[in-house]
Amino acid sequence: MATLRVQEANLLVIVASLNSPLLTLFLSCKELNRFLALELNLVIAAPISSSIAALGAGPQWKRKICNRTIVTFALTFLTSSQAILIVWSKRAGKYEYSVTTANFLVETLKCFLSLAALARTWKNEGVTEDNRLSTTINEVSVYPIPAALYLVKNLLQYYIFAYVDAPGYQILKNLNIISTGVLYRMILKRKLSEIQWAAFILLCAGCTTAQLNPSSDHVLQTPFQGWMMAIVMALLSGFAGVYTEAIMKKRPSRNINVQNFWLYVFGMAFNAVAILIQDFDAVMNKGFFHGYSFVTVLMILNHALSGLAVSMVMKYADNIVKVYSTSVAMLLTAVVAVFLFGFHLSLAFFLGTTVVSVSVYLHSAGKPPR
Amino acid sequence: MATLRVQEANLLVIVASLNSPLLTLFLSCKELNRFLALELNLVIAAPISSSIAALGAGPQWKRKICNRTIVTFALTFLTSSQAILIVWSKRAGKYEYSVTTANFLVETLKCFLSLAALARTWKNEGVTEDNRLSTTINEVSVYPIPAALYLVKNLLQYYIFAYVDAPGYQILKNLNIISTGVLYRMILKRKLSEIQWAAFILLCAGCTTAQLNPSSDHVLQTPFQGWMMAIVMALLSGFAGVYTEAIMKKRPSRNINVQNFWLYVFGMAFNAVAILIQDFDAVMNKGFFHGYSFVTVLMILNHALSGLAVSMVMKYADNIVKVYSTSVAMLLTAVVAVFLFGFHLSLAFFLGTTVVSVSVYLHSAGKPPR
Repeated sequence: MATLRVQEANLLVIVASLNSPLLTLFLSCKELNRFLALELNLVIAAPISSSIAALGAGPQWKRKICNRTIVTFALTFLTSSQAILIVWSKRAGKYEYSVTTANFLVETLKCFLSLAALARTWKNEGVTEDNRLSTTINEVSVYPIPAALYLVKNLLQYYIFAYVDAPGYQILKNLNIISTGVLYRMILKRKLSEIQWAAFILLCAGCTTAQLNPSSDHVLQTPFQGWMMAIVMALLSGFAGVYTEAIMKKRPSRNINVQNFWLYVFGMAFNAVAILIQDFDAVMNKGFFHGYSFVTVLMILNHALSGLAVSMVMKYADNIVKVYSTSVAMLLTAVVAVFLFGFHLSLAFFLGTTVVSVSVYLHSAGKPPR
Repeated sequence: MATLRVQEANLLVIVASLNSPLLTLFLSCKELNRFLALELNLVIAAPISSSIAALGAGPQWKRKICNRTIVTFALTFLTSSQAILIVWSKRAGKYEYSVTTANFLVETLKCFLSLAALARTWKNEGVTEDNRLSTTINEVSVYPIPAALYLVKNLLQYYIFAYVDAPGYQILKNLNIISTGVLYRMILKRKLSEIQWAAFILLCAGCTTAQLNPSSDHVLQTPFQGWMMAIVMALLSGFAGVYTEAIMKKRPSRNINVQNFWLYVFGMAFNAVAILIQDFDAVMNKGFFHGYSFVTVLMILNHALSGLAVSMVMKYADNIVKVYSTSVAMLLTAVVAVFLFGFHLSLAFFLGTTVVSVSVYLHSAGKPPR
């Protein structure tokens, strides 16, 4: 019991250290550079940050690289701590809150944080064409699409468990990696070199290998319907990601917080629909916040920050970077879990990590010449 | 029981079909081309062979490519059937013959086949400077080295089982892949591009992944001495391979059968030493051929032909090609074993095969420009 307390204390320190500097992430690009120079120096290795800080002082494209680096790091750390929080909340036996209400709160929090950041920008820079909140039907009409796709995907998630168990579903979720790559190529028309495609297949194989456990072979017995649903879900999730990137990049000068605000407003609306469809009775009978705990609050906070980091990755980097940073985060999580929860790393994990590392190398080595 | 008979009959057909066309492999290069035009057409897909046959009619370097292709195919098929024979002999419960006597017979058979091929060459082309059997101390002095290295490695093999179990040893044997790559670079001074190095690491990770089973994690508990011995054995085996390549290529015009003859004479001598060290009592009490069966004879035949194929790969291709064809053979074997023995393929096998396939692609895509 005492050991568990120590572990929980450790966890809090880690989660706090991951989150506190990242709270500033929803602020504007200017803030990002300042955040880098002041705080990243303390958190991540000094040499990395100082070299990036030097870049940050340079012209536009250098700032872009600097932003890309920060949001990539941020997303990786947030995703890691997310998985750790999930393990922690399961360990503590507290997982009885309704997921749809939590999702709604995540969207609401992101919306609020975007507005707060926006208010600050207005105060410092005044209202301009790029940062004003009002929009046109033409601009806003595409914003509901990602939220709608995620809603359909989340609804499907309830039905796929008729065909696949939870660990099998975790394995099948790696199909997301392939679908994101294919849709990124098809819809955004961005090219990956052949080496980068090879790296992408390796990323998928490596992540799956790292998750192997003695019961993983069950997934091969998945019936045809299960495979179809997993593929459809991977396509929906990939399409939502790629579509979000298209929205964020359509008008590069548009303030990211305005774009976020409109994305999250529709996110709130669609999650309200999800509450009505899935958890209406539970919310009516037991209340909106039934089963919430301190861990739940931490998870909502973490998901909101991760969501903002994803938006920034979409604006300043791309879906490929997102897939890589969430995959690396998964591996980091497992290593952290060894220290926090005394998990053992399997041989499969080492092999998967090796393959993912080679994939990361190949992705950068295989960059097509500009 | 009836099912097993059918499976054994199937096996014989497959082993026979793999071996019979390859019996001609120990013949000279001229024969190889004829073998290609006449037999490969029937055995492997017609389109491949006809395109290679067209190449075979061309000048020297085209013949070299053609030879490389054949010996690579041959080695892959022989290695596959080797593993199947081992499984078969274990299934039949016949594995009590002394391995050292079998190894001695393999060397003797290879020596005899090389001499037979040589006699034929002398008859057709007469004795020349390149195909005469007599040699100089200077030329022959390096030939005992590979055989001596293998002897030390095989002796070590008896001691490593104090630290690692047999399945664990199979996993650790994949270190050979890395050691061969490193020694190939260091000793033969041949360059691999960075992409090819990445491919080599993937080959090792992929082969290991394909062999994973629920008890594989034991290998992580291998004590320090076990790791050291596994690394030393990998280095010995890699060094022997690289040294053989250096010998075979030192004088390219030298007839391969003369080179083989001298290699295998020393092989016989060192294996005779191994019989004296390890199995002297068993041979004295139970006889040289105790425990031999029909499968044992097939295995000796197969090992001899594989050995000749390895020599040809060393002469016409290189150690990297050898490592790739034996790795691909291992995967082919598992697929064949599904049909022959009703084995099930695991998810780990599919993932490992994917990684190995990507590695094969990357090895050729990453070729440094000439």
